Amino acid sequence: MSTTTILAAADLEALIARAMEACNTSAANARSVARGLTQAEIDGQKGHGLSRVASYGAQAKSGKVDGHAVPEVRQTRPGSLLVDVRNGFAFPAFDLAIARLPDMARATGIAAAGFTRSHHAGVVGHHVEKLAEAGLVALAFGNTPKAMTPWGGRQPLYGTNPIAFGVPHGGHPPVVVDMALSQVARGKILTAAQKGEAIPEGWAVDESGRPTTDATAALKGSLQPIGGAKGAALALMVEVLAVTLTGAKFGFEASSFFDAEGAPPGVGQFLIAIDPTAFGGADVFNDRMATLASMIEGDGDARLPGARRIALRETAAREGVSVDAKLLGEVRALAAG
Amino acid sequence: MSTTTILAAADLEALIARAMEACNTSAANARSVARGLTQAEIDGQKGHGLSRVASYGAQAKSGKVDGHAVPEVRQTRPGSLLVDVRNGFAFPAFDLAIARLPDMARATGIAAAGFTRSHHAGVVGHHVEKLAEAGLVALAFGNTPKAMTPWGGRQPLYGTNPIAFGVPHGGHPPVVVDMALSQVARGKILTAAQKGEAIPEGWAVDESGRPTTDATAALKGSLQPIGGAKGAALALMVEVLAVTLTGAKFGFEASSFFDAEGAPPGVGQFLIAIDPTAFGGADVFNDRMATLASMIEGDGDARLPGARRIALRETAAREGVSVDAKLLGEVRALAAG
Repeated sequence: MSTTTILAAADLEALIARAMEACNTSAANARSVARGLTQAEIDGQKGHGLSRVASYGAQAKSGKVDGHAVPEVRQTRPGSLLVDVRNGFAFPAFDLAIARLPDMARATGIAAAGFTRSHHAGVVGHHVEKLAEAGLVALAFGNTPKAMTPWGGRQPLYGTNPIAFGVPHGGHPPVVVDMALSQVARGKILTAAQKGEAIPEGWAVDESGRPTTDATAALKGSLQPIGGAKGAALALMVEVLAVTLTGAKFGFEASSFFDAEGAPPGVGQFLIAIDPTAFGGADVFNDRMATLASMIEGDGDARLPGARRIALRETAAREGVSVDAKLLGEVRALAAG
Repeated sequence: MSTTTILAAADLEALIARAMEACNTSAANARSVARGLTQAEIDGQKGHGLSRVASYGAQAKSGKVDGHAVPEVRQTRPGSLLVDVRNGFAFPAFDLAIARLPDMARATGIAAAGFTRSHHAGVVGHHVEKLAEAGLVALAFGNTPKAMTPWGGRQPLYGTNPIAFGVPHGGHPPVVVDMALSQVARGKILTAAQKGEAIPEGWAVDESGRPTTDATAALKGSLQPIGGAKGAALALMVEVLAVTLTGAKFGFEASSFFDAEGAPPGVGQFLIAIDPTAFGGADVFNDRMATLASMIEGDGDARLPGARRIALRETAAREGVSVDAKLLGEVRALAAG
């Protein structure tokens, strides 16, 4: 068991920013990355939080990521942005697009940003949440390095390709959903392999594309998508939106988000913002959303997606953020240069 | 086993149009409905084809659907349409929106139509396919009468809520995907119940929300979404896009698409069209799409989604459409008035 340390969110964020700056990253980019990783850590999304600092830093040092990149945002039409992340971190590019999309969506009814030459998007739900806080329904799609085969195929071509959406919800925090399209995260299979346990059917296929319950064989193979052919088709949809539209690299072309080797990952993302006032109108929207929410919350143990993050944020604000002590030590060492 | 009859697609379409006209439906609406149902029959989507004529006709006769409705299309912003289907059939409303969205999407980069007071959307893939044939990447979302519970809930609130997308593919037919978010269609469970067979885990829950392998108990309960909580969240996303945005009825409020009783279903749909030239550009799009297609088709038994419909259409054009003889007799009787 690892021990944990509790520190204030602002201190954690400042520490991560210092660590990134010490790793060949501009102050502005380091701050943006630090905000994203800190929010992930607060929200209990540890896989997208503090644990990323070391690999981000190594990539900025090796040049796999350009820590000094200034993303280029080009408005191509009244409702469209093309964002060249220039092989830098994704967070500063999302900041720029999220600042511009709300006014565009209000003018045109719906607007979108496509990101190319991009990197790990962090918790994709955070991006749609910001747009939802601005009153917009938002959808996000991102491709990731290869992990899943097309249906009937043997080679992993698609990433786990997250889909996220955010919905304004009156005076309440937005409803936010963020999911990978794999049945489970690779980490669960890794844990089973380390314990010598079998994995349930439907989680993975072996390297010849056959379903397997052998965790070790699964690690050499591919993750299974949710819903079989349906999830594989959704993963294809994400590759089209994030890559075919933007010119980014497909899952089967992208290098790892974790190591510092090789060319930049160069993945893509696609972010859509919809103004409810351009369709049924604000009153209809708020009324319908309240009805839907009360039906869900009134039904057994069901709850609105994203409710857990609100509780975690309140805890963090009150008590500080609980982080892995060993990881924290590593980030402190990085920050000390 | 039922016997089949083969007839030319044009004759089938004319027959369906006559049957609809005989059932209190305007000539223009009958033609639009007939085109949609005939294409479904050709594409092997029998559940959305000829089998719908009797229930469509009964609904038009009872007034559950207004067969004479003229949909109202209002352009609310440069990139947005609000389509009031006026409790008529959905097909004529889709025809109008699909005629307008391409020019809008080319002007703004991305455009969308929200449909309210709508009805069964037919094969949702057909709508995105038409937009893809016009050079646009298209997404469609539609809610349907309640069939699935929220995650952790007991009451079915969401429909099976299809998601479809269509992608232009150079000189080839568009890539088209169309899926319900339930693990399987209710029809498969009905068949198992009739045969007294068990159903696999993961298909359905009983009326108290517990997973069941008993087909009869499953029919009293709810369908399970793909990927558990993930599919339930996607179904929620569809309710938001199709209903919260447009003012339509949620799955738990909508009456059946099949019988002629009660108020109009009043469901909603949401259709998005994206112009590839507004993002990475046409050359990048065509090149990236060709690369993705060749990787998928080069991998084992994998193939591009939607390939089967192309083969079926070629067969229908050459040999005619094979339809259930009993159903055909019923439709002929309706057409004879």
